[in-house]
Order: sequence, then C-alpha cells, then structure tokens
Amino acid sequence: MKILIINCGSSSLKYELFTMPKERSLIKGAIEHIAEKGTKIKDHYSGLKMILSRVGEVDAVGHRLVHGGEKFQKPVLIDKEVISKIRACSKLAPLHNPANLEGIIAARRLLGEGISQVAVFDTAFYSHLPDFAYIYGLPYEFYQRLGIRRYGFHGTSHEYIARKSSAVLKQPLRKLKIITCHLGNGCSITAIKGGRAIDTSMGFTPLEGLIMGTRCGDIDPAIITYLVRDRGWRIEKVDNILNKQSGLKGISGISNDMRQLQRKVKEGNRRAKLAIDIFIYRIRKYIGAYLAILGGCDALIFTAGIGEHQRGIRRRICSRLFSHLKTKPRILVIPTREELMIAHKTYQLVYGDR
Amino acid sequence: MKILIINCGSSSLKYELFTMPKERSLIKGAIEHIAEKGTKIKDHYSGLKMILSRVGEVDAVGHRLVHGGEKFQKPVLIDKEVISKIRACSKLAPLHNPANLEGIIAARRLLGEGISQVAVFDTAFYSHLPDFAYIYGLPYEFYQRLGIRRYGFHGTSHEYIARKSSAVLKQPLRKLKIITCHLGNGCSITAIKGGRAIDTSMGFTPLEGLIMGTRCGDIDPAIITYLVRDRGWRIEKVDNILNKQSGLKGISGISNDMRQLQRKVKEGNRRAKLAIDIFIYRIRKYIGAYLAILGGCDALIFTAGIGEHQRGIRRRICSRLFSHLKTKPRILVIPTREELMIAHKTYQLVYGDR
Repeated sequence: MKILIINCGSSSLKYELFTMPKERSLIKGAIEHIAEKGTKIKDHYSGLKMILSRVGEVDAVGHRLVHGGEKFQKPVLIDKEVISKIRACSKLAPLHNPANLEGIIAARRLLGEGISQVAVFDTAFYSHLPDFAYIYGLPYEFYQRLGIRRYGFHGTSHEYIARKSSAVLKQPLRKLKIITCHLGNGCSITAIKGGRAIDTSMGFTPLEGLIMGTRCGDIDPAIITYLVRDRGWRIEKVDNILNKQSGLKGISGISNDMRQLQRKVKEGNRRAKLAIDIFIYRIRKYIGAYLAILGGCDALIFTAGIGEHQRGIRRRICSRLFSHLKTKPRILVIPTREELMIAHKTYQLVYGDR
Repeated sequence: MKILIINCGSSSLKYELFTMPKERSLIKGAIEHIAEKGTKIKDHYSGLKMILSRVGEVDAVGHRLVHGGEKFQKPVLIDKEVISKIRACSKLAPLHNPANLEGIIAARRLLGEGISQVAVFDTAFYSHLPDFAYIYGLPYEFYQRLGIRRYGFHGTSHEYIARKSSAVLKQPLRKLKIITCHLGNGCSITAIKGGRAIDTSMGFTPLEGLIMGTRCGDIDPAIITYLVRDRGWRIEKVDNILNKQSGLKGISGISNDMRQLQRKVKEGNRRAKLAIDIFIYRIRKYIGAYLAILGGCDALIFTAGIGEHQRGIRRRICSRLFSHLKTKPRILVIPTREELMIAHKTYQLVYGDR
C-alpha cells in the first residue's frame, strides 16, 4: 500500500510517500514559502496538486495534526465531523491547526472521499497523563471552561523513539521506564513508563519547558505581568518576544543555531557560552525531575537535530548526572522519523482491522 | 544586648525581642490591620511606637527586607544611602519593600540615629547562584536593563534550617549537600551545596515554583498571553488570579488551608484530593531536579506550617522517592526561626567585629 504523509505548516508543505507495511520511503520533499511574495505556489491546494502529480497514485493519506485537544486520543479517519472537531481545537493552536486543516481539505478535494485519510495528533501520546501532571495550579474552571491544561507536543516523535528503544534494549516497552529528549529548534522531554507518557515539558502550548532556539521555556509568570502592567508593553509584543526572540537566540544575542553558538564559544564569546550552559542545565533539571517520578530509568534517549548530532551537548547533559543512582540508564541516540510513525498509524487504522 | 526584630507587611507589623548572643526570645507579637478601616493604629509609625513602649530599651534593631535586588548581597547598617538604594529596589517588590521601608523610617524617627539598625535581605542568600541558574531564557537585555532574573525568596528561612541541619547531622555545612523545603502559605525549595544556595524555586518574584496556598507556581507563560490577547482579560485581573485565586485554593475551589483540604478529602472531595496531589507531585519533581544538580544529597529538610506539622504530606512527598539512589538522604523537620536568624545577623554586624 502506498501511503502519503502530509505535514502542513502555515507556509510549508512537507510530504513523504511510503510503501507499507514494508516501511520503505519512496519519495519525500517539501514546498516552502507557500502564499509568500514572489512564489508561484499560491496556496496549500496548489502545492498538494503539484506533489500528487509527482508521487502518482496513493492508497491512503496520513496528516500530521498538531493539536487534538482532549477530543482526539488516537488517530481517526477523517470525515466532515472530524474536520469540524479539529476546527474547534484551532483556538488552542492558532498557528498550526488551521494550516493542518488546509492540507486536509485540499487533499479531500484533490483525491475525493474514496481515498482514506487519517489524522494523527501530536497531542494524542499525552492523553493518558495523570491529572496531577496535566492540571495547572490555576482555578479549576480554567481547565473546565477554557481547556487550559498541559497537552504536550512532539508526541509522535517521542512515541517513535520510545518504541525503537524497546527494540534496541531487547525489552518489551511495557517493562521500560525511559526519558526521551527531543532537542531540535523546538525542544521537549518526556517521561515514559510502560510505553505511556506520564509527564512532558511542553504544556498548554509548545512555549513551556526547556530553553529552545527562540522560545523562552519556563519563566516566572509574573515577568509577563511585570512587562505589561508595570512597563506598559503590549501583550502582542511580549508574546512575540517570548516565542521568537528568546531562548538560545535571546540569551546569546547571536543565533538560535547551536552550531553557530558553539563556534562563538570557541572564539571566547561569553553570552554564547551562557546560552548553552542554561540550555544544558535546564535539561539536566528535567531529567532529574523525571528520574524522581519514574523511580529511576532504564534508558535516556536523544533525538532531533541537536539530540542526534551534537555529541558534546549530549555528553555535557549526562556528565556526572547518574553517579548517585544505583543503576545508570543506557544512553541512546535514535533518529526520529515522525512521518514513518504517522504512516504506521495510518496503515494500522485503514488496513489493520482486516 | 537587646535586639528588636521588625518585619513589616503592608498592614501588619511583627516583632520579636532577643537577648543576644544568648538567643533568648524575651517578647514577641504582631499588630494586624494597620491603616485599615475601624482600626486605631493608623500607620506603621504608631504601631511601632506602641511596640517600643511595650518592649522598653533596645540596643539595636534588625529589619527584615524582602528584596535586596543585586545591590545587597549581605546585611547592611542602615543609613540614608541604604534607604535610597532599598527604595530603588521597590520596583521589583512593590508589595513588600515599601512596607519594609516604612518600618525602617518609623524606627529611625522613634529611636534616633544613635541606635544601630540593620537591614537583612531575604534575597541575599541567593546572591551566589550560578548565572546559568538565575538567567532566564529571555533576551539578555531583560536582565541587564530591567533586572529580570531569578532572585529567590524565603532566603532567611532556608539559611536558618540549613545551618541547624549541620548541627543535627554533626557535619560541617561546607561538606553537606541539602535540599530545604519551606512549605507554608508561600512555598519554596532550595538546593544548598556547602552552605551556599545553588538554585531555588521562587524566581523574579515569589509567584514562580511550587503550588502555594493561593499562588499558581510554574505555568506555561503562554497561558497569560492567551487569557489577555485571545480572551480579552485585563492584565490586572490575571495578575490577581495568579497570586490570590490560584494554587491550592484555585484547584480545590475550597480553601488555601491544607488542614481544611485534608478534612474534605476524608469526606470524599475529589478536587481537594487533586489539589493536594498536584502540590505533592510538584515538590517531588523539584526534589528530583535538585538531586540531579547536587549529585545526590545528604539531607532533605522540611519547615514552615505544612512542612513542620503535616506528617502525612511529608510522608507522601518522600514515598519511594529515593529507592533508586545509592544513598537515601536523612529527612529532617526543623522549625524555622527567621527572626532569630535576623537577630544573629544583626548582632554579628553591629557587635561582631569588636
């Protein structure tokens, strides 16, 4: 079966075609700058049309959805009702879900309803977090009425590397306690017990948690009220800074790119060093917190750009981190393959019950 | 020497008189509802005058100051220059420093400049945090130009119980790695290595960190921008909710009082249980994080209302928390005595060099 995986951003469209269940990747690529000035591709529909002419016939389509809210705890076959439910979640992910939806609607128009399409949600892996891990210390009505809770993101990636680690460790997932670190431009860390996520660093949005390329991660919430109320800044300005001018870029004043920062450190740049120090320190604290709630762990797994390719960073994260433990966890690097994970789930849902 | 300790809140004035260096408490008390409707005590000056007539002659006065910013790294003798520097820190602690200052000014007017007065800062214990622990993942200018960093609070309390633990453990402080939990209506936790704080849960303000009586502790910062920008709430309303309607009170919808919540749990109240579960879970995560950065620890110390008196809470915090460690830390309960600590520091500064 040929399964096409589609991942739409606001101005991008990534795709990969697999033969399943063989897991063979036949073709993959990305279209960037959709609907931007001077581009020929005016919307996701035109982009997808081009892609379909390139990949030929497909048997099913899997879509990556960032936010499934509490409505979607597993992958679903897309129909009109699903589309309107996803639309209802868009308030919670205004940057991502509308673009994801455009991809779905374009694919339905181009392929017709005869081709099964599946929505796979990044948040679904966290649908079994215990309530004491997902409820914030806020008035409970915030959760009930506004849906404010920890959702978690990067779930497809964390789930993929967790499953892979089970093969590497030659132990069934249900017997493993693992901590997975997805360290790319966005960064998150997840505690997984018996294959289920029990806590994760990203929260209501992908802003919370670790220091990222341009996102601030954990801060004192009173910093925001201080800037807005006492300094008179506009909330839009603050939001933009926290998401796009903070993290490695904000601390260093140089770049969100870890490789560039490392070059600057070698030249003696103090703030590049500080940015990396903070980045590593925060990861170490989260690993410690998750060791405590898991009661130790069997493996610590790194993935994504920094996690896979920055050996020095991995080494500093792990340095003397486990010396006080009875058993040191195995440390693994497993390249993430979110598209393959989505292909699996799509195949499973469409053909699995036959 | 008779040393009077003064701790002024916005509408309260707590005091305690010690004979030093004998550490004997001679008299203590509090005046509440200062300047409120229907009270006879119209300001801190009148309150202090009443107290002075009650305690008789004093040799020196020690004042508790909440925020010393980066200017004050240790206790100082108060003079005009110090007063204006404290005033400059008030922007960072608008609820606390102005009240603290009123106490200082009243005491100087009533006692004259002949009686030494000392300012002891709650933040000073954290003045040696490493930069990677106190700098946020924000643009570095926030720190340089606006003073936005982790300051930490409850320092006098954490320092006091850390020193006491050294006596209990019969080991010099400089050889100890300890974690101190101050769990009252405000809650904070500190990692201490060789007598120096290396990290703490409260940050730029006392809002960050653990779940507290009415304060939210750690949340996704994007929750605030969501409420203000997408829901149209006023920042003053959000600030009030995060500080006064959240935490144990907000989650449970019942009370900020741990004892009352425990009674409700016994009656089967689900949300009272959830509030306590979250409270405990967050403390466990912080202990885990601090175990990691300390590389294990010798003692875990509890203090303040909940920390000293709620055995069941302490037990749940520690339950199976250390089973994966080579060495289990000692668990101690040490009643905090912030006033005595301030008396010590005042005595040391005024008479210590003779």
